[in-house]
Amino acid sequence: MNVTTCLKESDINEIIDDINAVDTDTILVIADINVWAIYEKDFAFLETIKNKRVIVWKAIDGEKTKTFAEYQSCLEFFLEKNIHRKAHLVALGGGATSDFAGFVASTILRGISWSIIPTTLLSMVDASIGGKVAINSKSGKNLIGQFHLPTYVWIYTSFIRGLPESEFLSGKGEIVKYALLDNSIRESLFNSKDVYPYIMKCAEYKKNLVERDLKESGERKILNLGHTIGHALEKIYSLPHGVSIVWGMAVLFKIYLDGKFIDEIEKIIDVLDWKDHYPPWYNKSFPVKDIMQYVLKDKKGASLQEIEIVLLEDLGKPLIHKTTYEELENKLVDNEQNLKSFYFRSDTQTI
Amino acid sequence: MNVTTCLKESDINEIIDDINAVDTDTILVIADINVWAIYEKDFAFLETIKNKRVIVWKAIDGEKTKTFAEYQSCLEFFLEKNIHRKAHLVALGGGATSDFAGFVASTILRGISWSIIPTTLLSMVDASIGGKVAINSKSGKNLIGQFHLPTYVWIYTSFIRGLPESEFLSGKGEIVKYALLDNSIRESLFNSKDVYPYIMKCAEYKKNLVERDLKESGERKILNLGHTIGHALEKIYSLPHGVSIVWGMAVLFKIYLDGKFIDEIEKIIDVLDWKDHYPPWYNKSFPVKDIMQYVLKDKKGASLQEIEIVLLEDLGKPLIHKTTYEELENKLVDNEQNLKSFYFRSDTQTI
Repeated sequence: MNVTTCLKESDINEIIDDINAVDTDTILVIADINVWAIYEKDFAFLETIKNKRVIVWKAIDGEKTKTFAEYQSCLEFFLEKNIHRKAHLVALGGGATSDFAGFVASTILRGISWSIIPTTLLSMVDASIGGKVAINSKSGKNLIGQFHLPTYVWIYTSFIRGLPESEFLSGKGEIVKYALLDNSIRESLFNSKDVYPYIMKCAEYKKNLVERDLKESGERKILNLGHTIGHALEKIYSLPHGVSIVWGMAVLFKIYLDGKFIDEIEKIIDVLDWKDHYPPWYNKSFPVKDIMQYVLKDKKGASLQEIEIVLLEDLGKPLIHKTTYEELENKLVDNEQNLKSFYFRSDTQTI
Repeated sequence: MNVTTCLKESDINEIIDDINAVDTDTILVIADINVWAIYEKDFAFLETIKNKRVIVWKAIDGEKTKTFAEYQSCLEFFLEKNIHRKAHLVALGGGATSDFAGFVASTILRGISWSIIPTTLLSMVDASIGGKVAINSKSGKNLIGQFHLPTYVWIYTSFIRGLPESEFLSGKGEIVKYALLDNSIRESLFNSKDVYPYIMKCAEYKKNLVERDLKESGERKILNLGHTIGHALEKIYSLPHGVSIVWGMAVLFKIYLDGKFIDEIEKIIDVLDWKDHYPPWYNKSFPVKDIMQYVLKDKKGASLQEIEIVLLEDLGKPLIHKTTYEELENKLVDNEQNLKSFYFRSDTQTI
């Protein structure tokens, strides 16, 4: 497997050149069916690439593709075409497509090389980087998977111009996380409301971290900032991933840090032109029980009792905090009323 | 992932001690349902191991367990028990069980550590060593999988005393292969008709080779001696794996080496008390077409035209020979009549 990914800002022609140069006679493509329909003309070259056979699988859009049934269908589809171990797989789509495609690449013929053309903001800044690939289980998201680094990640920012607002917001949510983890990203954010300049910065930050700790045994864990509670909220309220991460960070900062750094989140979301100031439980009940049920099924723990959560010691200084499921639940219960009325204040918005 | 396996000859008490010492509070067991029924008393300890939770999945016996459906059921079974990344999986059974269990271990929660208690001769000398794990595709055996080295392989030779004859023969087939690959194994074979002394020798030979080349990019390929044609014969005639490997070697030696080393196979199978001297196609038609159809779906090739096959330069000196599918087919066709009447002669048998 690769131990490093070539991450680059590229246009379609550069992507074509790189694919042409891959040492194989067979290219497998897994493309989000909607993305494929929109950009079919741009990618028509894939089907006529010189001296290579190209086989395209069109994946159902979004998380719906990350099932056992789709995984089986896709593998059988490629395998019946008599492919071989030097085939190279290219994923075209958002994070769900690349999660799925990467898991196919990591297990077909015991693992073949692969690359990603991310087409959403979220996948450009986060999901396409770092080789975490997976499908979903009945018991939770991404519980079946592997670590399988892509050879190339080609960032072609033009893809995100047509994204729907909720997709855009989801990407911004991960940018909020990076801005809290890294001071240079945070400081540079205050120069522009446009996210384009920060895409490569976030992607490179993650790439460097991940290549020091691929298997998440140490520092990579800081990337889970906001995810412990966030994953649960994503499931409970069907939120876009990045949005749930921001609420996940806010909840942890409330219950573990007495609200510290919430004002920093507020500054960052303001500059990112983030309109979503009220959590989905605002003035309803805060779902402690549902959250704990999900967290217990998540996979961050190293034992039946212990869990690691990510907090901030300071801006740009994340901290991994070992705690128990019991303590986490107690803190959520103690802050239930407090959380119920919580929302992000804004300098640019009247409430 | 582990980069080395602790391979040891152990009795049940030593296995218990090692499992107790694994740094985890959760043990997952995947046990061949028949093996579990026979040895339930010996392994009852697993369910009451001190300070650890033990969760047992009973796998359908043999290759039948290596399907997508069983893979999905087993993963969902463990995941709904709220397991975590430090859980350790123990496989109990033959090669099919450990292939399946290892693939589960390599993909559940993006990979957990695992160990094997092989219970067949074939898995002791071959299948349990080397971390190749897989399930089957419609297009062929082991086409979906990973490389995932076990932490321990505990060889408890008492398990094989009750094996049915065809299982025993299958293990002996792989021993024939090792005897051709390694002169010290071959020479020591002539000292006894009992296979027990050679189990650890074969396992250690494979372990050392595999740990120098886990991903089969170089010298590990020599272990495929007999497998290119053997896998096809296994499928066509429903032969035990090791038996098909012996016929696979014989066919290649016939068509590429003009029959050289066939006499050496004959000497080795004689000393192993191997009774199976006639190939399944003897005096019927030799299945060139079926073989080629299967070989084309196998995964040893690095391109659409090329294939690598393993031959012998001399005893103990394997050779990787690059050829084309076309050349292989031509050689099979040219030798069709010759192969039809071929059988192993024996000093101890009258024909």
